[in-house]
Amino acid sequence: MSEGIESKMSDLKVDGQEPPKSTAESSTGKQKPKKQDKERKDQKVAHKSKPQQQAKKKQDGPELIGITEPKRGDLSEWYQQVILKAEMLAFTDIPGCYVYLPPSYRIWEFIQEYFNERIRKLGVKNAYFPLFISEDNLQREESHIEGFAAEVAWVTHGGKSKLEKRLAVRPTSETAMYDFYSKKIRSHRDLPLKLNQWNNVVRWEFKHAVPFLRSREFLWQEGHTAHLTEKDAGIEVMQILDWYADIYEHLLAVPVVKGQKTKNEQFPGAHYTKTIEGFIPAVGRGIQAATSHCLGQHFAKMFDIKVEDPDQQIKEGEKRDKLHVWQNSWGFTTRSIGVMVLVHGDDKGLVIPPRVAEVQVAIVPVGVTAKTTDADREKLYDEVHGLKTVLEEAGVRAEVDLREGYSPGWKFADWELKGTPLRLEYGPKDAANGVVTTSRRDTSEKGTIPVAELSSGVPKLLEQIQKDLFMKASDEYASHRKIVREWKDFVPTLNAKNVLLVAHCLGGDCEDEIKKDSAGNVEGQEVDARAPSMGAKSLCIPHDQPEPIAEGQKCINPKCDAAAQQWVMFGRSY
Amino acid sequence: MSEGIESKMSDLKVDGQEPPKSTAESSTGKQKPKKQDKERKDQKVAHKSKPQQQAKKKQDGPELIGITEPKRGDLSEWYQQVILKAEMLAFTDIPGCYVYLPPSYRIWEFIQEYFNERIRKLGVKNAYFPLFISEDNLQREESHIEGFAAEVAWVTHGGKSKLEKRLAVRPTSETAMYDFYSKKIRSHRDLPLKLNQWNNVVRWEFKHAVPFLRSREFLWQEGHTAHLTEKDAGIEVMQILDWYADIYEHLLAVPVVKGQKTKNEQFPGAHYTKTIEGFIPAVGRGIQAATSHCLGQHFAKMFDIKVEDPDQQIKEGEKRDKLHVWQNSWGFTTRSIGVMVLVHGDDKGLVIPPRVAEVQVAIVPVGVTAKTTDADREKLYDEVHGLKTVLEEAGVRAEVDLREGYSPGWKFADWELKGTPLRLEYGPKDAANGVVTTSRRDTSEKGTIPVAELSSGVPKLLEQIQKDLFMKASDEYASHRKIVREWKDFVPTLNAKNVLLVAHCLGGDCEDEIKKDSAGNVEGQEVDARAPSMGAKSLCIPHDQPEPIAEGQKCINPKCDAAAQQWVMFGRSY
Repeated sequence: MSEGIESKMSDLKVDGQEPPKSTAESSTGKQKPKKQDKERKDQKVAHKSKPQQQAKKKQDGPELIGITEPKRGDLSEWYQQVILKAEMLAFTDIPGCYVYLPPSYRIWEFIQEYFNERIRKLGVKNAYFPLFISEDNLQREESHIEGFAAEVAWVTHGGKSKLEKRLAVRPTSETAMYDFYSKKIRSHRDLPLKLNQWNNVVRWEFKHAVPFLRSREFLWQEGHTAHLTEKDAGIEVMQILDWYADIYEHLLAVPVVKGQKTKNEQFPGAHYTKTIEGFIPAVGRGIQAATSHCLGQHFAKMFDIKVEDPDQQIKEGEKRDKLHVWQNSWGFTTRSIGVMVLVHGDDKGLVIPPRVAEVQVAIVPVGVTAKTTDADREKLYDEVHGLKTVLEEAGVRAEVDLREGYSPGWKFADWELKGTPLRLEYGPKDAANGVVTTSRRDTSEKGTIPVAELSSGVPKLLEQIQKDLFMKASDEYASHRKIVREWKDFVPTLNAKNVLLVAHCLGGDCEDEIKKDSAGNVEGQEVDARAPSMGAKSLCIPHDQPEPIAEGQKCINPKCDAAAQQWVMFGRSY
Repeated sequence: MSEGIESKMSDLKVDGQEPPKSTAESSTGKQKPKKQDKERKDQKVAHKSKPQQQAKKKQDGPELIGITEPKRGDLSEWYQQVILKAEMLAFTDIPGCYVYLPPSYRIWEFIQEYFNERIRKLGVKNAYFPLFISEDNLQREESHIEGFAAEVAWVTHGGKSKLEKRLAVRPTSETAMYDFYSKKIRSHRDLPLKLNQWNNVVRWEFKHAVPFLRSREFLWQEGHTAHLTEKDAGIEVMQILDWYADIYEHLLAVPVVKGQKTKNEQFPGAHYTKTIEGFIPAVGRGIQAATSHCLGQHFAKMFDIKVEDPDQQIKEGEKRDKLHVWQNSWGFTTRSIGVMVLVHGDDKGLVIPPRVAEVQVAIVPVGVTAKTTDADREKLYDEVHGLKTVLEEAGVRAEVDLREGYSPGWKFADWELKGTPLRLEYGPKDAANGVVTTSRRDTSEKGTIPVAELSSGVPKLLEQIQKDLFMKASDEYASHRKIVREWKDFVPTLNAKNVLLVAHCLGGDCEDEIKKDSAGNVEGQEVDARAPSMGAKSLCIPHDQPEPIAEGQKCINPKCDAAAQQWVMFGRSY
């Protein structure tokens, strides 16, 4: 077992505490601010951006406070520094609830635009269902409520009045929506019904919260559709899964593996769950990226959603049979932004793929010194604005950085921290040569583009960056998906920061056993106090199976006597 | 006092009940569905769209179930029928919480696009702050919490655990956001800070809920900005107000009056509140359409948001004074959709202005009879699809209605119910003449457009409809804004479904007195059991004053001795 892994296997335990106990709780709603409000400002959660900090020191020659922890060091610390200093996110006084600041929210908007455009073509319409769900509705599907009961946030009071019935804050909206579906769907003519909503959901988990990856409130879209046949439902489940993969791969440049969840891991109440699984190389863990569920007829039976069979041959006077509809639900969350940060970020900070970067190109004027005349500087600035105009006309999102009192070096580091994909530098020397100097965020590679070719050269370079980011991450993921044929290799391969493809019987108990036996403290192996305690769980049954299961092949688990059914991807996971 | 007004003055009491008492409340989260779940389906709240209903009767020649209550009859009943039958909204089992179905949510998306485009130019960035607010933060600004305390929904439990500190579901986000502002704003260089969020808020009012107009959960945007000076803040307050008015007038074709709220009516914690006030002619009531607040320095003082004065002249070694920032907040809600319905709708159903209509043009093939050959019908359908293509290329959102088993007359009524601005009919006769027949939703006016001129003629006609809708509503509002110079005319003019412009002292107590004295049961006037009981409140101090206040002019209120200060718009209001 290689050394030095453990410290990076940490759980990204950024913010998992309950709020401090209040000494006095008032229900009058008129309490005076407490002393701790004042103190809170000085906590770790407060982050100061560089210009603000340095402004306190001196007006020119500010110091840049960059990322002080390398990504290969304490990943948790690195992650926290990156998302706070690049102002992707801010903490609040409520553990597990975060502020999505403009740089991250803008990525979410790009995702929304991309996905809306696609689902509209499929006839999906956006709508909005209430935040609150009555307890009666929430409980209608048994396995569903069992899956969510422990995490539901309950509203019990309105103003000073106790509500007669407490209300659940939606953890997901199946049970909020399907009462409506049962009223709306009266005939096969009402099918398919395809609604989607972009909203916030709350899952009051008591596990450690991790910004973006696991938060108590998060943003997502949830699509809910009803179909006449299982086949129609299944086609849609796969179409949505493909688009989810496209968002990750084409927008966020993050590779994913498509597959099906095992019974153990599927959505509470689902018939089956399709999933895309991502990978965080720094810790060698898988992460569920998005899921598309076929709910089968389970909810339709509980919510009484049925239609007459239109294809049944009946005689005069006979009644048609009633069919329960086939339902899907599928969701994509703000978790994706965290995965993007973890996959692409580096020691300098964020790396944002061009397609989701609000600012794709930062143009920084250089070579302005104390000796530069006002006229020369003005001329340079005019030219720089000209470059921006050319880029904008070519459809590039560009910004000019004319901040006073900051050196070009400081500005470079600031744009790098924020992950801007491409920097253009332009000074008197560049002007003399008729070029702009380019600097790629992802590779730090420098180059030049003739000013005359800017409108084609920059978009081309941005596309190259987008492609290279994906290829790099894709190669890395591929090299960490290891086929493991014997149990003795299972844990060592896992500990070498891989996810594993193993022949498995698909038994739920067997999965649990593997999870237990692959946890840190394993019989017969050296015990390291810092060893990861988490076992491997099944991530998915990949659609792309590495090879056929051989005849007579047994399950990887030596304690299991069953025959192997499929290659299953196992791994430690978020 | 004219008769027949009263029945239309009803409060649109559509849905104001608390849920029925539960006989047994379980906190295990595993209760079985109750009998009442089954019964709920048959309640009034269930609405069946026409095709669904008729499908049960016979397959062809369906009957259309349109709006059965005229707009001049029981407005409440008319409104409920229109929004349910046109599928703008659905009820839920939680009173005051509604489903925004695709036809209304799409309008909301048009509003979002329009407003986002504008505020981005102003440097406002979208973000997302948590749904929950700690009680500590919520209470920091005294008048603010006093204004909202009675309406706050409280989360007290997560799963089965009682939270150590209960959490407020945001009624608005000043107190959720300004703790972050105090950390973020360290120097005048951090100003202005301009964030906006599109989200859901909850105000657990116990007044009667009215779909769109007053609901316990609603959708809105809330902008929150911080500025160095009062002047900068004030410029923005007015810019936003203008854009809010533009959304109403240019998109929704609904006229508004811009003005300032009196102290009595301003936002809890504001320095001053600018408002746009709409008007519902059917009941002669005003309705607050949107508000833009200058919060002054109140919140900045409570949340300790301050910067060093950059303009202060100081000597070496001296410290600059600290200045509290000037803040604004401004919000625009889904209420706007309800105002649009109430202003433009008619006895046939919705009327949607072209700019916010998802389907601007419905193309219905006509003249297909039992004698029509398959080949002829196919040819006609091809031509109809061709018309759609031409329109789409001209930027028009068009749909072809080829539903089988429905007569053209049924389809006409269905598109009219849904408010589609323009219908095109096209049959063999039209084909022979090289024209399409047009039918305007707003005026029922029919006409023709040569097929060759479709791509210019239809957009032009849509613009005309948009303009005419606004002009009609604008004229109606103008004719119901009455200058009233003597108190004796106040209540009669009010009861004639007007809003009033009166010279007023701007005193809060005087406003309360007017409200009381203009209520239905007024001394010395005939009392009618059906008379409106609500008094008139100040809607705004219009920016566009009808005339200067004369020297020595007294307040309209005969019980008030003070001098008039401004013309104030009073009215009954939602």
